[in-house]
Amino acid sequence: MYFYRMLENKKTKLTPIENLGEFELINHLTKNFSIDNLSSKTGIGDDGCVIDFKKNLGVISTDLLIEGVHFDLSYVPLKHLGYKAVIVNLSDIYSMNAKPSQITVSLAISNRFTVEALEEFYDGIKAACSKYKVDLVGGDTTSSTTGMVVSITAIGQVTNKNISKRSGAKNNDLLVVSGDLGGAYAGLQILEREKAVFKVNPKVQPDLDSYTYSIGRQLKPEARKDVFELLNELKITPNAMIDISDGLSSETLHLCKSSNLGCHVYEEKIPIDPEVIKICEEFKINPTTAALNGGEDYELLMALPQSDYDKIKNHPYLTIIGHFTDSETGGKLITGLNQQIELTAQGWNPI
Amino acid sequence: MYFYRMLENKKTKLTPIENLGEFELINHLTKNFSIDNLSSKTGIGDDGCVIDFKKNLGVISTDLLIEGVHFDLSYVPLKHLGYKAVIVNLSDIYSMNAKPSQITVSLAISNRFTVEALEEFYDGIKAACSKYKVDLVGGDTTSSTTGMVVSITAIGQVTNKNISKRSGAKNNDLLVVSGDLGGAYAGLQILEREKAVFKVNPKVQPDLDSYTYSIGRQLKPEARKDVFELLNELKITPNAMIDISDGLSSETLHLCKSSNLGCHVYEEKIPIDPEVIKICEEFKINPTTAALNGGEDYELLMALPQSDYDKIKNHPYLTIIGHFTDSETGGKLITGLNQQIELTAQGWNPI
Repeated sequence: MYFYRMLENKKTKLTPIENLGEFELINHLTKNFSIDNLSSKTGIGDDGCVIDFKKNLGVISTDLLIEGVHFDLSYVPLKHLGYKAVIVNLSDIYSMNAKPSQITVSLAISNRFTVEALEEFYDGIKAACSKYKVDLVGGDTTSSTTGMVVSITAIGQVTNKNISKRSGAKNNDLLVVSGDLGGAYAGLQILEREKAVFKVNPKVQPDLDSYTYSIGRQLKPEARKDVFELLNELKITPNAMIDISDGLSSETLHLCKSSNLGCHVYEEKIPIDPEVIKICEEFKINPTTAALNGGEDYELLMALPQSDYDKIKNHPYLTIIGHFTDSETGGKLITGLNQQIELTAQGWNPI
Repeated sequence: MYFYRMLENKKTKLTPIENLGEFELINHLTKNFSIDNLSSKTGIGDDGCVIDFKKNLGVISTDLLIEGVHFDLSYVPLKHLGYKAVIVNLSDIYSMNAKPSQITVSLAISNRFTVEALEEFYDGIKAACSKYKVDLVGGDTTSSTTGMVVSITAIGQVTNKNISKRSGAKNNDLLVVSGDLGGAYAGLQILEREKAVFKVNPKVQPDLDSYTYSIGRQLKPEARKDVFELLNELKITPNAMIDISDGLSSETLHLCKSSNLGCHVYEEKIPIDPEVIKICEEFKINPTTAALNGGEDYELLMALPQSDYDKIKNHPYLTIIGHFTDSETGGKLITGLNQQIELTAQGWNPI
């Protein structure tokens, strides 16, 4: 049950942060984290973390999550938030075809947070670190005048020949995506609706059983470690790769622009879970729109040479959804009726 | 003249951020940044940046700056803010005795910022990158519901034998600090006072000429690249090092705790600029308190073996202010009257 976790006082004893102070707080929250990767030369406790990359290239990615913009604590439990904040950064490392090994976590909070609330947040961080075998090697907490701000930096490693950038796609390459799309967006619609219902009548407990997959995609996404490992096993180095944080449309156009190419994406090939289609019907949303513009799916989108076709065809993790063309074509969606529609990117605009 | 820059409309044409959109905004702001370091294998434009560390260890440091907590835009010009945000991170890299080579910049802003305002911020970033010869290799902008949030990650390199951590100080090591202390805190007092005066009577233009040094220390600090280079020339590897962001007291205690030692700091040895002493008199602050607890001086504090004494004595960059003792002594300030006072760390507390 995801709802209203922030509103419950499940523990009888809540500790104000002032009771610990800054330095003790960091120690307290991170004391159960172990350092397991050989490349982690230091843990938390110096001005910078020290990483031994050996002969590998280092890959570094950083993300800023702002309360009220990227998350809503009225329905996102802090443990899930901690987990997701790590995942979105690991996903960026995997999208370079690199293996994540360390993270640093910076956190700004106001005094409405208790030590117990932050423990939940760090429980989520720890769960992600354990699952993905990355070490927490740096940390900072500071105060915030209003909302919570989370900034995570992820560090990974890759050999020079294995790296995948956005710019390496070739004309006629296959456009391939992992998993399915639109789920995180569909989950968000459900959560927003239930939040509105709850505001009107807090006694109504929502029945979310038939939306489990989509809500999970929104609240507890995973990074595609399995796909990264699969590519490695199959000896596939994508010519270009990106993760889907803003939606299939944006990310496809990023690959096209960086590689100076165009592409055809076939609407009927876009993988969408049946539950997501059902939710889209409820909300009168076109499922293709959810996949193209919804974002937050954290799937990997890649350009593979045609010669890799036999290696990946019918693989349950991967779907071929189109192919790259010359740049004059632009980015096009080919609909079921064989119409061509221009893909458009949707970034954020300031609030 | 530092004041009221945010309040002036010096340009006739101000461009709302919406006019550009997210992706165009990043391109626009970063288009004049060049990539000069050989270790920068990619610039902005992928999910992560790629760094070639060769045989060196990588050092990574990250900092979160929150409007209203770490900076006040009523008297901090955006260009200075951009510059300072880079400096505080480079300082962390130098404090590991490492050479900074790259930064990434993440920024959250609301729609009260115009494209021109962000250009000023990035002008400051660029000035710091040029001066310190670091490359901007990653960037992200996102929206914020209220204040501005800046998160910078700095990346540097160091050989295994040259690295300085907090934990390496030895009993009897000299405690040595670069530059002088308390200036940034004194500058902040002046700026806060003038802000209060301005609120009462906006026509009064403050006369800040006699506070130039301290205001500069607050608004446009520098990282001690020169000290890092000096140590290198003198073939000195500090047993332990830290930069002074929270104040001499906190940082000394960090070195003591990490190295499991105590220390004696001699009050009369603490280097304080005459202008800072004058400001402290005006504000009835003990100058030693400003040095111990003021913070933001971004000087380097290090533990050097006694055998390095001849190399550093009388060097204008460096002052010996005390020595390490066994841990039972604790951290002690020895006053001019030979009294021993316990050093205490002051972290932040939530607002």
